[in-house]
Amino acid sequence: MFVIVTYDVDVRRVNKVRKILRKYLNWVQNSVFEGIISVSNLAKCKAELDKVVEDNDSVYFYELKNPYMLRKRVIGIEKNLFDEFL
Amino acid sequence: MFVIVTYDVDVRRVNKVRKILRKYLNWVQNSVFEGIISVSNLAKCKAELDKVVEDNDSVYFYELKNPYMLRKRVIGIEKNLFDEFL
Repeated sequence: MFVIVTYDVDVRRVNKVRKILRKYLNWVQNSVFEGIISVSNLAKCKAELDKVVEDNDSVYFYELKNPYMLRKRVIGIEKNLFDEFL
Repeated sequence: MFVIVTYDVDVRRVNKVRKILRKYLNWVQNSVFEGIISVSNLAKCKAELDKVVEDNDSVYFYELKNPYMLRKRVIGIEKNLFDEFL
């Protein structure tokens, strides 16, 4: 599957959420990850996040079976935060 | 079309970017908008953003012709202020 994940979580939990998402997906913008992921890894990823997310935290998964149905267009720069982060 | 827009822009331009996106789409998370939009409005929206975006700003458009190809799942709370989705 192809997944876009966006998150808006309390600053105390940002690092934990990023750490989980980074295991499964690519960090592509400040609060956005995306990538190809298997159904089982997607379930694992969500289960891990479920344990961390609290209160007013919000994590969205936009899931697509076929990534070719989706077109991505960028205004400004396309950030690849992957290198920076490791 | 159905579009998800994520942005990461300098704090000096956040309000401008939000104001443009709010005209065309629904604000659903801190730096995420989504919604159904016509091809011509999508072009207008991008043209307006093009004039505002600078330097290291980054705005992503994830575009889909058929919104039913996409599934949205939420962990935590859904912050949709407009109570409207697929």
